[in-house]
Amino acid sequence: MNALVNCNRGVEVAYGADRFTATLAQVYSTFFERETFIFPVPTGTAGNGLALGAITPSYGTIFCHEGAHIVTTEAGAPEFYSGGGRMTLLAGEHYKISPATLEDGLQRHGIGNVHHMAVSALSLTQATEAGVVYGLDELRALSAIAHEAGMKVHLDGARLANAMVHLGATPAEMTWKAGVDILTFGTIKNGTMNAEAVITFDSEIARILSVMHKRAGHLCSKMRYMSVQLLSYLEDELWRRNALQANRNAARIADALRPCAGVELVHPVHINEVFAILPPSLLQALRHKDIHLRPWNFQGNRQGFRMVMSYCDSTEQIQRFEQACCEHGPSKA
Amino acid sequence: MNALVNCNRGVEVAYGADRFTATLAQVYSTFFERETFIFPVPTGTAGNGLALGAITPSYGTIFCHEGAHIVTTEAGAPEFYSGGGRMTLLAGEHYKISPATLEDGLQRHGIGNVHHMAVSALSLTQATEAGVVYGLDELRALSAIAHEAGMKVHLDGARLANAMVHLGATPAEMTWKAGVDILTFGTIKNGTMNAEAVITFDSEIARILSVMHKRAGHLCSKMRYMSVQLLSYLEDELWRRNALQANRNAARIADALRPCAGVELVHPVHINEVFAILPPSLLQALRHKDIHLRPWNFQGNRQGFRMVMSYCDSTEQIQRFEQACCEHGPSKA
Amino acid sequence: MNALVNCNRGVEVAYGADRFTATLAQVYSTFFERETFIFPVPTGTAGNGLALGAITPSYGTIFCHEGAHIVTTEAGAPEFYSGGGRMTLLAGEHYKISPATLEDGLQRHGIGNVHHMAVSALSLTQATEAGVVYGLDELRALSAIAHEAGMKVHLDGARLANAMVHLGATPAEMTWKAGVDILTFGTIKNGTMNAEAVITFDSEIARILSVMHKRAGHLCSKMRYMSVQLLSYLEDELWRRNALQANRNAARIADALRPCAGVELVHPVHINEVFAILPPSLLQALRHKDIHLRPWNFQGNRQGFRMVMSYCDSTEQIQRFEQACCEHGPSKA
Amino acid sequence: MNALVNCNRGVEVAYGADRFTATLAQVYSTFFERETFIFPVPTGTAGNGLALGAITPSYGTIFCHEGAHIVTTEAGAPEFYSGGGRMTLLAGEHYKISPATLEDGLQRHGIGNVHHMAVSALSLTQATEAGVVYGLDELRALSAIAHEAGMKVHLDGARLANAMVHLGATPAEMTWKAGVDILTFGTIKNGTMNAEAVITFDSEIARILSVMHKRAGHLCSKMRYMSVQLLSYLEDELWRRNALQANRNAARIADALRPCAGVELVHPVHINEVFAILPPSLLQALRHKDIHLRPWNFQGNRQGFRMVMSYCDSTEQIQRFEQACCEHGPSKA
Repeated sequence: MNALVNCNRGVEVAYGADRFTATLAQVYSTFFERETFIFPVPTGTAGNGLALGAITPSYGTIFCHEGAHIVTTEAGAPEFYSGGGRMTLLAGEHYKISPATLEDGLQRHGIGNVHHMAVSALSLTQATEAGVVYGLDELRALSAIAHEAGMKVHLDGARLANAMVHLGATPAEMTWKAGVDILTFGTIKNGTMNAEAVITFDSEIARILSVMHKRAGHLCSKMRYMSVQLLSYLEDELWRRNALQANRNAARIADALRPCAGVELVHPVHINEVFAILPPSLLQALRHKDIHLRPWNFQGNRQGFRMVMSYCDSTEQIQRFEQACCEHGPSKA
Repeated sequence: MNALVNCNRGVEVAYGADRFTATLAQVYSTFFERETFIFPVPTGTAGNGLALGAITPSYGTIFCHEGAHIVTTEAGAPEFYSGGGRMTLLAGEHYKISPATLEDGLQRHGIGNVHHMAVSALSLTQATEAGVVYGLDELRALSAIAHEAGMKVHLDGARLANAMVHLGATPAEMTWKAGVDILTFGTIKNGTMNAEAVITFDSEIARILSVMHKRAGHLCSKMRYMSVQLLSYLEDELWRRNALQANRNAARIADALRPCAGVELVHPVHINEVFAILPPSLLQALRHKDIHLRPWNFQGNRQGFRMVMSYCDSTEQIQRFEQACCEHGPSKA
Repeated sequence: MNALVNCNRGVEVAYGADRFTATLAQVYSTFFERETFIFPVPTGTAGNGLALGAITPSYGTIFCHEGAHIVTTEAGAPEFYSGGGRMTLLAGEHYKISPATLEDGLQRHGIGNVHHMAVSALSLTQATEAGVVYGLDELRALSAIAHEAGMKVHLDGARLANAMVHLGATPAEMTWKAGVDILTFGTIKNGTMNAEAVITFDSEIARILSVMHKRAGHLCSKMRYMSVQLLSYLEDELWRRNALQANRNAARIADALRPCAGVELVHPVHINEVFAILPPSLLQALRHKDIHLRPWNFQGNRQGFRMVMSYCDSTEQIQRFEQACCEHGPSKA
Repeated sequence: MNALVNCNRGVEVAYGADRFTATLAQVYSTFFERETFIFPVPTGTAGNGLALGAITPSYGTIFCHEGAHIVTTEAGAPEFYSGGGRMTLLAGEHYKISPATLEDGLQRHGIGNVHHMAVSALSLTQATEAGVVYGLDELRALSAIAHEAGMKVHLDGARLANAMVHLGATPAEMTWKAGVDILTFGTIKNGTMNAEAVITFDSEIARILSVMHKRAGHLCSKMRYMSVQLLSYLEDELWRRNALQANRNAARIADALRPCAGVELVHPVHINEVFAILPPSLLQALRHKDIHLRPWNFQGNRQGFRMVMSYCDSTEQIQRFEQACCEHGPSKA
């Protein structure tokens, strides 16, 4: 944080205001190995709304997971930005949509049936709301089905850096090479202050976005404050270092929890999130170490906890967590 | 049908164009025993869209049954007319929403949570898509919960006449006395050519509707062609006679089916619809009598049939159906 | 009118419900000499809204005359159907837009300027709200400019039959051969009860229209009542005979007025409308013949009259009008 | 700028993230002498869009000046946020709307006419796009007419601080005491980085705004970065000092220009903007002093210049300007 603020000021003096935004598209084009159109936005909700609005007409529907962030926590941004679109909800373990589920959903919906809305977009969250990562083959299979049905593919990448690091995939492999037409590129959860970005590789979508971005009020007169954050994020692979560190911290937490008696890890731990059901005894042991967790409701009304690791969690904190688990003791057996 | 067309011409000559629409509000006010604002529309989809759009802002959500017609078969009319609203889907046997389910849904949604859309409307279908009727006490309980949460109550009354006849309820009891703020009054399925109506008892909602009705293109320059249908529908209780006859026809069909071996009536038969799973032997017997049924998919992917009775089904047709059932024979036991 | 109703019943018995709509596209394709997609609607407002909504995204603007019916009298139908579009208003004598005015308007707006809405559609009224007809060369010039700017061309054809008859143009020459992408085909003002149509020659626009038509509630379950009107309208060239007669009636009225002292014909008389400023003495002469005119406000707050002729005006009525003018006497000089 | 950034960091350490936003409403309530609801946004376009969207339904129209920023340069934000509303354009000298013009516009529009959109909002810009300030009596007269017609009153306050300083009016006098229901409070042009605010005094409008603010993506997860700017803006009357200085700088420029030969000040100089037509000789004199002006198109296609003064213009710069004028010499006579 301090680093970013210092960097802001330093860079600003050196380059002057205009160069940032001019540079932005170029730097991201290099990053994605292809001509890239980038639109800074202040929040993930703005990013998802804009991205989905650019590919969903008012008479279109967006296929997505029933637990997706765009469904549960963004106050109807997709409906607002599309001006009347709908989200068609699909089920799936770990908040993932399987190709079979998508195909089934499309078949039940019917394509070209005037009594139903047009199928316009597929929105996938990478990593999912359960911290689980789609493999590249899964992404490619889903995109192929969507494109075949005439839909565009959107990636909600609030935690995309963590997912890329987990897979060892390049930005290009994770996006356009896998059939992604547009993505919300999250950076706030991995280091920036208030800059996310909508990114597309399609010049026609970019043309639409440029007007929508302005009229929604996201084209800042002093855009350099956002641009510099998005530039710093890629500089010296800050994104990768932060994501790697956060993922490693989560892996250590998961490793510490796994052998403990009465612990259930609800989802696989792919990135920097650990979802677990913990016994009261372990909770007490953690509290003795001054560690307090965020309660989380799982399906079936089961109570548990969500632990989100950051690149700036201290080694000391994690060691305390490990000690608490150790002292609590392993599963009997 | 012929009767209606003749009536159209006759009345038109007698009264002249303007009197119909002027008379309409007055006749329906008498019918509902209260000042009534009425807006003719050509389809149920237009009616539901307009009615929901008048009580749902673009940031609002409509609670309704997951199998409601507004969800499954109207191509997003509620989203279109509200300009970005959403439908929050609830489950329930026989396409009915129970008060407990509504309360639970509201609690899970949260009221005043800015991460969620505003709760704006409750839409109930009377009779439901399964041909099942809400009792007046059920309607009142659901309306009370909705109003408490700050929502308006909409009734999709595509088959309202049949439901009124089933309950022996007056139009007033079925609507505003039960807390209904606005309704789509279906008449096409019970006798008219192309006239449904949006009806409200709230002058503020009526003020909104009057502009929306015009700008959606439903305010006809020659409105008398629609008005006369809506007037004829109430004249001499045509609505009641048609609905009674249709309900009776369905009751006879259900009575004939019930004792048959291998028959399952999937939903209670309250109005003019019979939903059933039938054995191949019975289907064959019906085909021999030249009776062909409309296939229907039930939940759990079960195949069956939907039989919709009309006021104009002939006694002879129904007798043939009864004979086929009789010949097929009763359930062994 | 009686003829139409009789025809309705006759045809209905002869063909059965389904054939009408199936036949509709075919008959209109023949009429327009090209594959034609047709969507019946109950009003001109619905037609203009749907047509403009199908070619105008929510971030798009429609260039049109400041006095166009879509601007002044349709309660915002274009904004509703486009979900947030705008109309950019142009001036022009006799409610016509000149090619120079359009070019100037586009230049002032700027294309590709993100601070301005996208340029999406040009809407022309044929004949204009002043009863004046665009020549085919004017239509072609305007369409060429619009297409060059990436816009689609819409024709509000509330009085299209009268304009075709005036020019002696074929339906094809008047529409797609002149660059028109979509039109509102008015028939109510020239003979039908409550059926207008949106017509396009572009299959992609037709795909969009098919969903919008349904979700706006204009896809009637008993579509045959509208289809039969639209079919009858073309049969035996009813449209042409009605339009010819109405235009001739207007020409006689204009011819009678022109020599009268103190009369000003405000717009050229091309079709069935006469706009005039009349001296009190002539008004009195007309009243003596039991002829009462509809007052009209002209620009500059000048008071005058609008006379709309119909195909069913009687010869006797027109003769009475001519006599009144005759008796009033010619301009001194 | 440096001051703000330092302040950001300092305050952040001292208070912690949450206190800023909690404090914000309280500080602004004190500022406006009344309970105030405040919603930070990153741009004036977002602010105007949100504010107008909260008081304009999709079927409503906003009366405003034809040259207002919301009309000319915000890419249809009002239409987007209202989901289909329209702006009804009024004329007026110096971009001001007079009470008589508003009354005339309302009369021509007609209230309660279903063929026209509902009258929903009046939007005034204070100071106007010509840098001219509405007097408090003018604001009160306009608000009274608007409220009488059932409209809400919006103030686009991109330069509100400058206007308040010019009039010597308190924030309360300038807003709710003058009948303003909602305002866009501009701060970027007077000192902050990227924080404007929508402010209302009406709890019902605030309830609507809270959902719209979230779903448009303006509710930042790290809101403290915006809140701290809005807090700093009021601290030690920074807003007043900046505005006073900027206004004084403009007054000096205007005073220098006024006596010059061939100079026309196009609008009165009330705040920090000077609009002028300058002779080539003076332009040359300015260029010799290394002063370069921004060209500006005035009505009637007249070319001139717009000079916007800032609180951070140096005394030396202004003196150079004055010297150039002096050397150029006064008007002969």
